[in-house]
Amino acid sequence: MTTLTHFDAHGQAHMVDVAAKAHTHRTAVATGRIDMLAATLALIESGSAKKGDVLGIARIAGIQAAKKTSDLVPLCHPLALTRVALEFATLTEPPSVQCTATVETVGPTGVEMEALCAVQVALLTIYDMCKAADRGMAIQGVRVVEKHGGKSGSFVAP
Amino acid sequence: MTTLTHFDAHGQAHMVDVAAKAHTHRTAVATGRIDMLAATLALIESGSAKKGDVLGIARIAGIQAAKKTSDLVPLCHPLALTRVALEFATLTEPPSVQCTATVETVGPTGVEMEALCAVQVALLTIYDMCKAADRGMAIQGVRVVEKHGGKSGSFVAP
Amino acid sequence: MTTLTHFDAHGQAHMVDVAAKAHTHRTAVATGRIDMLAATLALIESGSAKKGDVLGIARIAGIQAAKKTSDLVPLCHPLALTRVALEFATLTEPPSVQCTATVETVGPTGVEMEALCAVQVALLTIYDMCKAADRGMAIQGVRVVEKHGGKSGSFVAP
Amino acid sequence: MTTLTHFDAHGQAHMVDVAAKAHTHRTAVATGRIDMLAATLALIESGSAKKGDVLGIARIAGIQAAKKTSDLVPLCHPLALTRVALEFATLTEPPSVQCTATVETVGPTGVEMEALCAVQVALLTIYDMCKAADRGMAIQGVRVVEKHGGKSGSFVAP
Amino acid sequence: MTTLTHFDAHGQAHMVDVAAKAHTHRTAVATGRIDMLAATLALIESGSAKKGDVLGIARIAGIQAAKKTSDLVPLCHPLALTRVALEFATLTEPPSVQCTATVETVGPTGVEMEALCAVQVALLTIYDMCKAADRGMAIQGVRVVEKHGGKSGSFVAP
Amino acid sequence: MTTLTHFDAHGQAHMVDVAAKAHTHRTAVATGRIDMLAATLALIESGSAKKGDVLGIARIAGIQAAKKTSDLVPLCHPLALTRVALEFATLTEPPSVQCTATVETVGPTGVEMEALCAVQVALLTIYDMCKAADRGMAIQGVRVVEKHGGKSGSFVAP
Repeated sequence: MTTLTHFDAHGQAHMVDVAAKAHTHRTAVATGRIDMLAATLALIESGSAKKGDVLGIARIAGIQAAKKTSDLVPLCHPLALTRVALEFATLTEPPSVQCTATVETVGPTGVEMEALCAVQVALLTIYDMCKAADRGMAIQGVRVVEKHGGKSGSFVAP
Repeated sequence: MTTLTHFDAHGQAHMVDVAAKAHTHRTAVATGRIDMLAATLALIESGSAKKGDVLGIARIAGIQAAKKTSDLVPLCHPLALTRVALEFATLTEPPSVQCTATVETVGPTGVEMEALCAVQVALLTIYDMCKAADRGMAIQGVRVVEKHGGKSGSFVAP
Repeated sequence: MTTLTHFDAHGQAHMVDVAAKAHTHRTAVATGRIDMLAATLALIESGSAKKGDVLGIARIAGIQAAKKTSDLVPLCHPLALTRVALEFATLTEPPSVQCTATVETVGPTGVEMEALCAVQVALLTIYDMCKAADRGMAIQGVRVVEKHGGKSGSFVAP
Repeated sequence: MTTLTHFDAHGQAHMVDVAAKAHTHRTAVATGRIDMLAATLALIESGSAKKGDVLGIARIAGIQAAKKTSDLVPLCHPLALTRVALEFATLTEPPSVQCTATVETVGPTGVEMEALCAVQVALLTIYDMCKAADRGMAIQGVRVVEKHGGKSGSFVAP
Repeated sequence: MTTLTHFDAHGQAHMVDVAAKAHTHRTAVATGRIDMLAATLALIESGSAKKGDVLGIARIAGIQAAKKTSDLVPLCHPLALTRVALEFATLTEPPSVQCTATVETVGPTGVEMEALCAVQVALLTIYDMCKAADRGMAIQGVRVVEKHGGKSGSFVAP
Repeated sequence: MTTLTHFDAHGQAHMVDVAAKAHTHRTAVATGRIDMLAATLALIESGSAKKGDVLGIARIAGIQAAKKTSDLVPLCHPLALTRVALEFATLTEPPSVQCTATVETVGPTGVEMEALCAVQVALLTIYDMCKAADRGMAIQGVRVVEKHGGKSGSFVAP
């Protein structure tokens, strides 16, 4: 039967033992988007081209958030990340900004939490900078799309 | 024409001046959910009843995240929060956990960013604790549902 | 019947609402000690007089820890502290260093958690600097000795 | 003559050089308790069984604190912890909660500071959640009980 | 005789008492520059115009650093900043980037430390991004240029 | 042609990939000074001898800042530092305090950012403690003086 590994036999939370796990190269890619009014998207796009670089700031916020993951998620192990990169794409149907984060490490555990955290905080930062113009934005579809390395092998979302 | 207030006339980001804004009581409510396999939801529900309290831990992570918002979102003002509360509900169609966060302050700016941040990190923490059982979970519909106080008045999402 | 105020009617943890509480001047004093070998105490005392200032470093660690209390204790409100001071005394029966922290604020909640946190981290820092010489040190009697301000009035430990 | 290794030949504090130390598996166990009124202990015990899970929250606070040790204790090295677990036991003579933390790493220095820090913040969190009911609680006997790994070998408290 | 206010009558450091100080509007402006090779400056200037926005990232780092000042400088009071803005100018004699930070609050103490911290971390971030091209950069002339508000009145550097 | 490595081919910032870089022993030495009135320097020197240890506190602040570098500088990799040490010297022409920081690690990237960060925050802490006596202090000449280890080899400033 499947159980939740973050709890011991008595149901108590712990940061699980990874001392015996091999230090291997691990990669995770996560994605998500923020839906908004077409007018809000237009503001972001004009800003990126000329001034008021919303996506540049969201990228920095996402990179820094990846490094804070083990401070935010209680049972996450601290990891020395070896790479963090975020890409943005603008979509028109619905009007939205898509964020994709790639995180890598050489270590004993995977980095999908770091990739998800980077996406979430990048999208949250976009919300913050656009909220005066659009209060109805919504963050959607934040999920892991790829994960490589480690004993459990590769995962690629269908 | 609407512009983005986090940028000055030259398009440079700044933390905007709120010195002259009234210190009023402000409330924000944000929500979001994490979709998962029915079997994963069953694990969470059995855990909460007996042992392995996923939602209890996610609640604490969300409360702490609300307090870190201005550290995560670059242009957010630091605020002395006066209340943070998170509620969870389990849904079956699709199988998911819904998180709703209420944040309050007496201060010069609103607290919707803090409420969104609490929801996001709570859902991220659920992902972390269930990821060994279900890699396909997705965070959906993270948005502000209510906001009260301050010069711009109340907002209630349609 | 007395209940625990950090839980709502459903037993769920929250950061309690303090929006309606008056901003008054609040003071808390906490104390605690670390017991050690007489030889360890002699090392500290000689160091403070001449070089290797264990207590000076512990004082700084305690002051900084007071400012981090709401980051460490999940349901604590962030507070703008107006004063933090730590005093140390050396005792010979048993050989130990006593730390007393005084913390003040003008705000809606008390500062006893901040004072306790300052004492604990100051004593922990002493442990760190002396552990190569003495592994059997023990931290004892960390408690609130005085608390003033706020609706619940003054508390002075018997 | 024994001296304090955190100070150089001129008595100046430094974070000591561990570059040449072997990366070995290291474990530390620390313990401590918080004494309280019998009625307070009864509140905690009823809460843990049904709702208002004081010890579950304290466990999370302790795990997160272990990860913050090098931020709190000035001369501590940052370490990638591989395991953190906390156990609680309730004692009746005197009425108290005992906390025991086990921390592990594969690295160049020991983890007793992390284990002590986890115990201290877990007990501090219990204090916070029970302080409305009992202002006279005291934290006692915080010490290292076991330490394994590294050049200095095993230590087991008498 | 002038003495250092961060030490009490016994020479012990403390975070000084500001409970009785008036909450007034306070502003501080700090400046500093980083000297570099002309070729490095050219890289920055071309980047800002087209891609690789060194100064945009340094601005965000500076804003975030202002919010962390009381975490970095041991005896600083935590303050709720109401505005943070950074300006950059490029100079040719010597080739350098000048950073000027303006910080404001409504509170009991001045914000010159926050303005200095913003300048320092912004310049440090420029160093980081250009260090592969130029190892000889130097940070120069970091100082307060203006300070207004509070009992001690205005200061304008000569 | 030299380009800035912190930006990809599209000019987007990223935390660069260091997974393939060898873990070698790396050392960096940075320096800088704070210029002040002769009377301010006299206050510091008398304090260090007897009480009010400005430089001892600045040293601790610098050590802690080195550990926070990757939190302050957006594109820095987190590193497990193996040594941090700061030295101070007082100069009379002009009256100033010189700070020199040495940082070491065994890892995939250099530690010059950590050494610079330690120097900056140590000097900032001196500014804080002396600012009531001297508002015109200026931080000067913060730069890397030596760097060893890694593929790019040794750098010694001319």
